[in-house]
Amino acid sequence: MLNEWLNAPVQEASNLHVKKAKQRQDSLTKPAGSLGRMEALAIRLAALQATERPAVERVTIAIFAADHGVAAAGVSAFPQEVTGQMVANFSAGGAAISVLAKSLDAQLEVINVGTLHDPGPLPGVRDCRIAAGTANFQQQDAMTEQQLAAALLAGRESVERANTAGTQLYIGGEMGIGNTTSAAAIAAELLMMEPEMVVGPGTGLDQEGISKKTEVIRQALSRYQQLDKKPLELLRCVGGFEIAALTGAYIAAAQQGLPILVDGYICSVAALIAVNLQPKIKPWLFYAHRSAEPGHRYVLASLDAQPLFDFGMRLGEGSGAATAVPLLRLACDLHNNMATFAEAGVSDQ
Amino acid sequence: MLNEWLNAPVQEASNLHVKKAKQRQDSLTKPAGSLGRMEALAIRLAALQATERPAVERVTIAIFAADHGVAAAGVSAFPQEVTGQMVANFSAGGAAISVLAKSLDAQLEVINVGTLHDPGPLPGVRDCRIAAGTANFQQQDAMTEQQLAAALLAGRESVERANTAGTQLYIGGEMGIGNTTSAAAIAAELLMMEPEMVVGPGTGLDQEGISKKTEVIRQALSRYQQLDKKPLELLRCVGGFEIAALTGAYIAAAQQGLPILVDGYICSVAALIAVNLQPKIKPWLFYAHRSAEPGHRYVLASLDAQPLFDFGMRLGEGSGAATAVPLLRLACDLHNNMATFAEAGVSDQ
Repeated sequence: MLNEWLNAPVQEASNLHVKKAKQRQDSLTKPAGSLGRMEALAIRLAALQATERPAVERVTIAIFAADHGVAAAGVSAFPQEVTGQMVANFSAGGAAISVLAKSLDAQLEVINVGTLHDPGPLPGVRDCRIAAGTANFQQQDAMTEQQLAAALLAGRESVERANTAGTQLYIGGEMGIGNTTSAAAIAAELLMMEPEMVVGPGTGLDQEGISKKTEVIRQALSRYQQLDKKPLELLRCVGGFEIAALTGAYIAAAQQGLPILVDGYICSVAALIAVNLQPKIKPWLFYAHRSAEPGHRYVLASLDAQPLFDFGMRLGEGSGAATAVPLLRLACDLHNNMATFAEAGVSDQ
Repeated sequence: MLNEWLNAPVQEASNLHVKKAKQRQDSLTKPAGSLGRMEALAIRLAALQATERPAVERVTIAIFAADHGVAAAGVSAFPQEVTGQMVANFSAGGAAISVLAKSLDAQLEVINVGTLHDPGPLPGVRDCRIAAGTANFQQQDAMTEQQLAAALLAGRESVERANTAGTQLYIGGEMGIGNTTSAAAIAAELLMMEPEMVVGPGTGLDQEGISKKTEVIRQALSRYQQLDKKPLELLRCVGGFEIAALTGAYIAAAQQGLPILVDGYICSVAALIAVNLQPKIKPWLFYAHRSAEPGHRYVLASLDAQPLFDFGMRLGEGSGAATAVPLLRLACDLHNNMATFAEAGVSDQ
């Protein structure tokens, strides 16, 4: 079967290391539990990395970029050429995620899974164009089965490169004008919610634009009412190449034992599909933030996700996840480097 | 007058730089406003630092340590000697704040404003012991007027050292067994709330301990019902040397034009006193987090504070504020280093 690899088993967290990490946290010079979520983050990373000294120094940020046929319906505040222009901006170092990756000393890879125009060779950009954007899902399925398989695989291959390079934390990001429309269509269907509950302004639509976007989604989903509702089929019909790549990446990362930090709305929808396909990947997914896109809260709730912060961010590109990286790093530093009561000669409770 | 310097004028933020920073944010390659609070943080720092390129690379973390006579009432889960032991742990590098300061490459200074026992000379610890702890405010005023003045001044002197060293962000922290009792007493009085609303477990009291702590506060405050309710007098009667030092530091930092990142419950209570004394310092105060100590939310609300995250931290030492530093740094990096639409050749909305 085309996507059989998605069903391969997922790594398991180490219960032994959960126990050891908890013991260590309780021995450190602080009232037990007084570092709150910083303790929980370190314990969870220790379990996932099966180590007594968790670390997220080596971080990979992989941005998947693709265009969306549905952009023709006027569902975005920005013109479609911006997707390709932003790929060039990622390469040149001027985008938010470029700046963040540099500040964090993270590995940034940009994977072009299908911009409308071929931007030609660009430093740091991998050409994996599956097609010149998806088809407009108002009229036809966004992808063929072969295209969906290729996009899922592009995600897995990114994780394989990251894993080979010794990455300790994997962040997926996305760029694609029109992709909140795809994400909202998937969220509405998987969460069984009315589209207006999960549709938002994206890059900056006004109320009229949001209404139009909602109507586009409603019409498209009505075409699939009679069809098989499997998540993968939904992804093929109304998804995007970058969303499919993220889905593949999340499943592959859990299969390969690599912790994942999930970004905002689009990435959380990809995680929702991935968790629907493989519920056992859940422990591998950390959630960075709650975005300003109104549907995000429902997707997060459905995933039992507890994001670290809510800054009203809504840029994508993995920018929210990148912002959260230092919090995980400091959690590891505290866990690894604080003195115990015995070492410091401090009286315990 | 003894504390006349507290009334000296506070620096003002630059409206010109607010405007310039907003213009720059709107020119960067992202939908306007899509970085949410990261944009607001950068704009505010630019205004306070009166610069087009805000930065918080050089950070000072000053920990004020002192003992509390009221600890004799059994209001803490830890024995009183822990204050002095933790001062030694700060010096040796084993405490949470030591680890965080090192990870952040921040300047850590520890100011002993009054531990019960003299720990002797310790590397990185400044001996400013005002007394061997405050008096037990169950029976008498915690401090004399001279002691209060000395504690306030210890805070100002720390800020002067930081400012001379070129610090771009000042963090105050505290260590003092019994100091949530002082803080709760001050909060109850200034917020005009019943003590049980602002008393919490501190380092780990059980329900019985919390009830006892509440009763201690209630009895002490009843002694002051007939007295002058000025914040400074309240600080003298039920406060602590480290809380007074933080109050002095916050006012001095605003006077000297140094942005402040406030930590948890104790520090926010010091900020509450400082804002009561000098309302114009408000723009200089950033709030890092909401702590697990239940009274913190009321203090924050009274200060119109919007903390950056809520991780259930309750350690003190400035640890929550230190954890937030990378968020401010990344906000500055994004503001300073992203490309504009024009520079990157990306189409605007």
